[in-house]
Amino acid sequence: MKQSVLFTKTRKEAPKDEVSLNAKLLIRGGFIHKRMAGVYEYLPLGLLVLNNIIGVIREEMNAIGGQEMKLSALQDKATWETTGRWDDEKIPVWFKTRLKEGAELGLGFTHEEPLTELMRGYVSSYKDLPVYPYQFQTKFRNEERAKSGIIRTREFIMKDLYSFSRSEAEHRAFYEQCAGAYRKIFKRLGIGEITYRTFASGGVFSTYSDEFQTLSQAGEDTIYIDEAKGIAVNKEVYTDDVLKDLGLEKKNLKEKRSVEVGNIFSLGTRFSDAFKLAFKDENGAQKSAVMGSYGIGPGRLMGVIVETLADEKGIVWPSEAAPFAFHLLNIGGGDEKVRAYTDTLYKKLLKVGIAVLYDDRDLRAGEKFADSDLIGIPKRIVVSGKTLEAKNIEVVERKTGKTKHVAEAELFHRGA
Amino acid sequence: MKQSVLFTKTRKEAPKDEVSLNAKLLIRGGFIHKRMAGVYEYLPLGLLVLNNIIGVIREEMNAIGGQEMKLSALQDKATWETTGRWDDEKIPVWFKTRLKEGAELGLGFTHEEPLTELMRGYVSSYKDLPVYPYQFQTKFRNEERAKSGIIRTREFIMKDLYSFSRSEAEHRAFYEQCAGAYRKIFKRLGIGEITYRTFASGGVFSTYSDEFQTLSQAGEDTIYIDEAKGIAVNKEVYTDDVLKDLGLEKKNLKEKRSVEVGNIFSLGTRFSDAFKLAFKDENGAQKSAVMGSYGIGPGRLMGVIVETLADEKGIVWPSEAAPFAFHLLNIGGGDEKVRAYTDTLYKKLLKVGIAVLYDDRDLRAGEKFADSDLIGIPKRIVVSGKTLEAKNIEVVERKTGKTKHVAEAELFHRGA
Repeated sequence: MKQSVLFTKTRKEAPKDEVSLNAKLLIRGGFIHKRMAGVYEYLPLGLLVLNNIIGVIREEMNAIGGQEMKLSALQDKATWETTGRWDDEKIPVWFKTRLKEGAELGLGFTHEEPLTELMRGYVSSYKDLPVYPYQFQTKFRNEERAKSGIIRTREFIMKDLYSFSRSEAEHRAFYEQCAGAYRKIFKRLGIGEITYRTFASGGVFSTYSDEFQTLSQAGEDTIYIDEAKGIAVNKEVYTDDVLKDLGLEKKNLKEKRSVEVGNIFSLGTRFSDAFKLAFKDENGAQKSAVMGSYGIGPGRLMGVIVETLADEKGIVWPSEAAPFAFHLLNIGGGDEKVRAYTDTLYKKLLKVGIAVLYDDRDLRAGEKFADSDLIGIPKRIVVSGKTLEAKNIEVVERKTGKTKHVAEAELFHRGA
Repeated sequence: MKQSVLFTKTRKEAPKDEVSLNAKLLIRGGFIHKRMAGVYEYLPLGLLVLNNIIGVIREEMNAIGGQEMKLSALQDKATWETTGRWDDEKIPVWFKTRLKEGAELGLGFTHEEPLTELMRGYVSSYKDLPVYPYQFQTKFRNEERAKSGIIRTREFIMKDLYSFSRSEAEHRAFYEQCAGAYRKIFKRLGIGEITYRTFASGGVFSTYSDEFQTLSQAGEDTIYIDEAKGIAVNKEVYTDDVLKDLGLEKKNLKEKRSVEVGNIFSLGTRFSDAFKLAFKDENGAQKSAVMGSYGIGPGRLMGVIVETLADEKGIVWPSEAAPFAFHLLNIGGGDEKVRAYTDTLYKKLLKVGIAVLYDDRDLRAGEKFADSDLIGIPKRIVVSGKTLEAKNIEVVERKTGKTKHVAEAELFHRGA
């Protein structure tokens, strides 16, 4: 895409009411727009990043047998009364609305209830299980505080997968498989090394739940990490008994701030019992499906990537999240030869399917470099009178600043 | 995908409360699930179709310079009071809700207001225009009647593009370009020949708006078509004066039922004036941007495709919307040779990237054929003891029922 065509522009200053680093940088770079507190809109560059993150998650969910579908935001009272979760006292984050005729509706903050109810139509025998439906769907949560940019918002896309298994053992096997898929997702998105699988409070059906927590000053959580073992414990379960249970020792643990980027819950038969989601086993006995839920917020992940990987110059996208692979800049203003060469190079890159943002604007080199640093595309390709004379191209890695000069052909053969 | 793994199943009967043909067939085929009146959920097969339709629309919108973004569903009062459209009396389809602290919010039924407000931050000079932002975004409409299956719902994804131009002439040129893109979309989705560009009532800024109306008994609209000219007039503007204005004659017009599958409105400066979205022209004069809006509902399109192309046996998907290109069936129950051959063929098809649904279930041929007809994948590949012996494969076209026998290699070389 040509930057002269892109309707967004970068800004030198972030809005004064914006306190979080992720929102400041993303607004300055033209990735997002703040509609109101806790509600952000995705501009073209931001939507590209969000969709790339969704793409990575989708691949890993499909790889473990996930079946993508899409439930509705509008929720009916009767469904949620089945589990007692309609009550605003019990679930303070509900947004409620009304049909014209008067019936009250809710906006889904999660989807265990409607999905379990739906699955009743498709599960009756052990042959129908296990099954792993998931979705990328917009959740609404009536949060009181919303000050973390796109990390905690009132409206956001969530990847929520739900597992329906025949036994606790089958459930547990998938649970671990999904934990492995989550590891891959965080690694592919550049935050694998600072993300810890974290023991957190469970529920009626299991002692613990698993959170994936990324170390970040922007985090609302406190965790205790054991670097050698690569695991952590959430402050909410940080007791002597728990540490003993997990075989961890206080002296090996470090207190850190972190953001929850994913979670896995064992739900047991709480929902399948409530909705009578049962199946006949091999011996003809009726059993309730054993369930789990598995969440990741792609928008939150985007915010965490910005918070943790940015430097003083701006955003640093990992390649799988980046809106473009290359940021192509022509330097030297009016030089017709430079412009003609860069135009041709741009077309060649597009032709072989390389995603490239071409800063073809009539700006000083310094301004183009500053914008490019702020936007954070992994590799910058610079064409100038100098590179033209030397018959090469300058390639600068955003993350390290490492610069090299390569022949044009090399750009295509090895992606520089 | 293997059908034994797909969690949905086909049904012989549609739910009794479902009156529309599209919902009946889509529920029976396992494409959608009805959550409540006017609210449907997309099951795996249905989501594949919906995403294919979205993909076609996206390609055509990008081809005319559209820039994809995504606004929020949650809407704030002040924005909509600017144009007087906050009032429930004026806009009866609003769903309203409240923040915890008490402030009233709306759920977007369209997005002229928030987008025009947003664009103010990016438009100040004639150099910033024209620009064509668009989105696939979930709209909420508090419809009183919702009896047309997925054709009219209370929650649906809409492709809404908005054009911001420097002059009426520039606006008009894009308007026609977008009408051309719409033609391509409906053609690619198999309803080009039964879809008419239709004159409908305009607004303050233009005499007419353009609707794209698809002939269908399921439609809520009445239009008068001139087959020779390939255009139509909506009943709402079907007067002698209008016919004269359009150069149409009553004797050449036929009354038909139809569904609106797309629309284009000239908005003039109604919204840009209200939000002070102005730009400096080449001579330094302040001008308001000239706007248009361009809508298509991918879910509605899916419903219309089902309504208009289905036959007595079930759904008939056009290839660009189909969930899979091929439906692979092995016939002959226990025959190990047949199963082994079909398994291998399935893997080969996947390997070259062909989207295939493999009915590997242990069912009678008749049941597999009936399911296959209902689901409506364009081409059915049948492997049986007979085809194995003859060293060929049976390929049946869903639409025509035309059957041919081809060598396996032909399947890969010419897509049968």
